[in-house]
Amino acid sequence: MTLYLEDLSIGQAFRSEPRVVTLEEMITFARDNDPQYFHVDAEAAKASLFGGLIASGWQTAALSMRLLVEGPAPFAGGLIGVGAEISWMKPVRPGDSIRIEGEVADINRSRSRPDRGIVTVRLTTYNQRDEPVQRITARAVVFARGDGG
Amino acid sequence: MTLYLEDLSIGQAFRSEPRVVTLEEMITFARDNDPQYFHVDAEAAKASLFGGLIASGWQTAALSMRLLVEGPAPFAGGLIGVGAEISWMKPVRPGDSIRIEGEVADINRSRSRPDRGIVTVRLTTYNQRDEPVQRITARAVVFARGDGG
Repeated sequence: MTLYLEDLSIGQAFRSEPRVVTLEEMITFARDNDPQYFHVDAEAAKASLFGGLIASGWQTAALSMRLLVEGPAPFAGGLIGVGAEISWMKPVRPGDSIRIEGEVADINRSRSRPDRGIVTVRLTTYNQRDEPVQRITARAVVFARGDGG
Repeated sequence: MTLYLEDLSIGQAFRSEPRVVTLEEMITFARDNDPQYFHVDAEAAKASLFGGLIASGWQTAALSMRLLVEGPAPFAGGLIGVGAEISWMKPVRPGDSIRIEGEVADINRSRSRPDRGIVTVRLTTYNQRDEPVQRITARAVVFARGDGG
């Protein structure tokens, strides 16, 4: 199943399966991309604001979009982001299980290139205690089925 | 050198050194966090909207913040993000060299916890052709020097 622009409607809701994020994944991500001590060093992180190692917010963001497109919303052509607004409300800690719930907030078919449109999706990422840890409103290019689909 | 809340002023500007992002780094990031074909498969990516493999926007975001805090703006306590708005304007391709220019847009000392504040920074990420590839407005917790600093 692939979702084209014509398959989407405002208010359409999505919900993913949960996914565990391990300590190893957090450290691997952070070493390469966000090597702050509270993301890479479990011992040193105890003295941080967070009292322990937490995932980089950028990893939570990327994994949340992955949960969307590999799960309930496999957009045609993938998720081609043009922008996003993010709020991080709670840390994601090693072994936490995250899942997303989201909905289509807006759909704008391109006038100049009617084979595509910009879709706005609002996602909330929850942990295993159903606490919201992150909110994203993302705008992405989604292709239309057109004649060839 | 560490930057505390008292060291920051609205309009204060930052500029980082450039950093090359390699094909290998892009694929490693994407395999784990954003495994879409145009981020992980250079051959298949040729048929994508982008005409070749590009970095995940989340990697560009994370590396841009890294360029900020490991370079011109080593905030006390690290970069503790509470939220961000991102626009991706151009793809980052293997071997591109990215750098950031930014400024402090706002400073709000916490009334309830005066040992910290929320600082808003606006960053533009440029490639080696001085084309803007990404804009981020990020809000982060920055600690005050207080008595102990």
